[in-house]
Amino acid sequence: MSAVGRSAIRDLLELTVQPGVLSLAGGLPDPRMMPTRHELIERLDHIDCASALQYGPTEGHPELRRTIAEQVLTGVDTADVLVTTGAQQGLRLLCEALIEPGDVVVVERHTYVGMLQPLRAHRAEVVTVGSDHHGLRTLDLAAKLRTGLRPAAVYLAPTFQNPTGIVMSDERRRQLANLANRYGFVVIDDDPYRDLSFDGQAPSRLRDHVDPDLAVSVGSFSKSLAPGLRVGWVHAPSWLHRGLVTLKQATDLHTGMLAQTLVESLLSDSTWLDGHLAELRRVYAHRSRVLSDALVSTFGDRVEVGRIYGGMFAWATVDRLPGGADALSERCLARGVGIVPGSVFDPEARPSCSARLCFASCDDDDLREAVRRIALAVGDLDRAS
Amino acid sequence: MSAVGRSAIRDLLELTVQPGVLSLAGGLPDPRMMPTRHELIERLDHIDCASALQYGPTEGHPELRRTIAEQVLTGVDTADVLVTTGAQQGLRLLCEALIEPGDVVVVERHTYVGMLQPLRAHRAEVVTVGSDHHGLRTLDLAAKLRTGLRPAAVYLAPTFQNPTGIVMSDERRRQLANLANRYGFVVIDDDPYRDLSFDGQAPSRLRDHVDPDLAVSVGSFSKSLAPGLRVGWVHAPSWLHRGLVTLKQATDLHTGMLAQTLVESLLSDSTWLDGHLAELRRVYAHRSRVLSDALVSTFGDRVEVGRIYGGMFAWATVDRLPGGADALSERCLARGVGIVPGSVFDPEARPSCSARLCFASCDDDDLREAVRRIALAVGDLDRAS
Repeated sequence: MSAVGRSAIRDLLELTVQPGVLSLAGGLPDPRMMPTRHELIERLDHIDCASALQYGPTEGHPELRRTIAEQVLTGVDTADVLVTTGAQQGLRLLCEALIEPGDVVVVERHTYVGMLQPLRAHRAEVVTVGSDHHGLRTLDLAAKLRTGLRPAAVYLAPTFQNPTGIVMSDERRRQLANLANRYGFVVIDDDPYRDLSFDGQAPSRLRDHVDPDLAVSVGSFSKSLAPGLRVGWVHAPSWLHRGLVTLKQATDLHTGMLAQTLVESLLSDSTWLDGHLAELRRVYAHRSRVLSDALVSTFGDRVEVGRIYGGMFAWATVDRLPGGADALSERCLARGVGIVPGSVFDPEARPSCSARLCFASCDDDDLREAVRRIALAVGDLDRAS
Repeated sequence: MSAVGRSAIRDLLELTVQPGVLSLAGGLPDPRMMPTRHELIERLDHIDCASALQYGPTEGHPELRRTIAEQVLTGVDTADVLVTTGAQQGLRLLCEALIEPGDVVVVERHTYVGMLQPLRAHRAEVVTVGSDHHGLRTLDLAAKLRTGLRPAAVYLAPTFQNPTGIVMSDERRRQLANLANRYGFVVIDDDPYRDLSFDGQAPSRLRDHVDPDLAVSVGSFSKSLAPGLRVGWVHAPSWLHRGLVTLKQATDLHTGMLAQTLVESLLSDSTWLDGHLAELRRVYAHRSRVLSDALVSTFGDRVEVGRIYGGMFAWATVDRLPGGADALSERCLARGVGIVPGSVFDPEARPSCSARLCFASCDDDDLREAVRRIALAVGDLDRAS
């Protein structure tokens, strides 16, 4: 695994804990929006503690698997669901199961950094395809396929993407599915933000369009419940599921049973869950508007922020930015605000004028103050150029 | 990973849940000896829930790492401790970090099955060395080294070993260390049973003898607290620790923070911990005696059970056993008792007349009834031969 890949993501996390820095850098959900101590204790009062503390099946807690199949994924076969130690483990296991050294994997030009590490560890050849505000440019992918590209898999996060927040349109989803079905590559739909749709509506899933033998999805409860529980899932066709279970067993035997039992208990209380998700969506939607409004009122036409439909991130592109977003993020840190430059999310680390801003954990005043500091940093760069 | 490796360990676990079967097969601690609901709630009442539910550092919960370094490992550098998702993850990460395809890894002839899976996945050449009641036969290892064997690592569980229960003598520990230091191989001391020493005394640690740059130890709180929390650790020299952290990050970002926080809270309450461990040792010691006594009074000289000093397992060798322990375990299942034949723990699956019996989860009456059923099964084999 490359030292670059390691330090980039670690710097990201370290940025979030420096004293005096307002951090829009990390991808941290707001701990005030997670289950409370009282709610955890209430759950503990009602679960089977003996089995929550014992070894469990590698595939996952049986009721949780069923809940994921029926309620989260709405009508897939429970047998094809594997509970993982966060979505990160799902991605890692998929790389192990699917990739031989030299295999091509297509990713979005700006993609989840945590996928690049296992892709590199398994010596995938990573090919990027650009996106616009409808999501991955499927015409560009089609052109590459026509000229001979034969990916083992296409990995993307089509719903409130990290880092860009983009939602892939239904038309593009169908186009991608047609290409997968025609050229026979696996589509990995990384889908941890679906529950954070601000209007409660979420787009179709890639598996609604892709040949079931090629459709994989990955998700977690880190954004909708709490990351510290480390509970995620992989839904994969049975030919792949079996291999994932074997690899999972060698990796950590199974995901923590106490954490799985708590997640199952929270998910199956629909009154609590509906209220919790509604409040989460309301708060994050509000913060996304506060951040967008502050950016627009501060920078006017010089900044482009796409409309944010859900998730935790804004993707801001600043026009005529001396030194690009890499220089800006350094200058921002000096001004006391953390942002992540686009190059970090690009497997080829190409410079860009875009940056990811996480609005999930900040109050209104902090978001406005963060934008004020970003403006100071932009001013510094303008003057120095 | 081989299909054999997978099914063997899975069968093991499935044996433990068949109705009507008294299982001495699984390696399950007794859930009645784990923290109670009341104790968990009391802990939750005093921990920082917001940080227990949030993302955490890849290396582990800072206070837990310190507690492991100072209290569990008694005086190692906190910086060299990595918290893992159970000891299984530690073993997996070590295989990833240390083994190139074709590298030789020496293991005990009967070894922990969960290590064989990752060894095979990373295409290690597994070489076995036999043990006697003083532990690994270091003279046999020395002979192999003299004739050219050059292992990357020697993996062993020298303290209350799974499956044999053997404690490696201090002399053998020093001999192994001398060989490691001379030939430059890494020693992996898999040490999850140390807290289950029936007289509260545990032998020296391999790292007390081995060159610090070659000494690795792995452990977990699965046996002493609860496996469902999935919290373990690896202590490794810094050259290796850094690589393990990078691999861990790609594998699951970090181990569940709620589980780590609970473990830290339990470990740092010395009054509770001392009482808990004393009771655990008392109960397991008692059960080991009940099982040994029942075996000796039933089979007399025909069975050999070494004295059990700690851990969860008895290793019984039956003389003149038609078909060996493989036939016996099948026959036992028909008679309603689960045991695991020695061949399962042998990388080369050589037939043996020994079997592993786990006494940890059974009451006295069940242990005696289990031995009665084993005797019926032996009788069946005697008659059929």
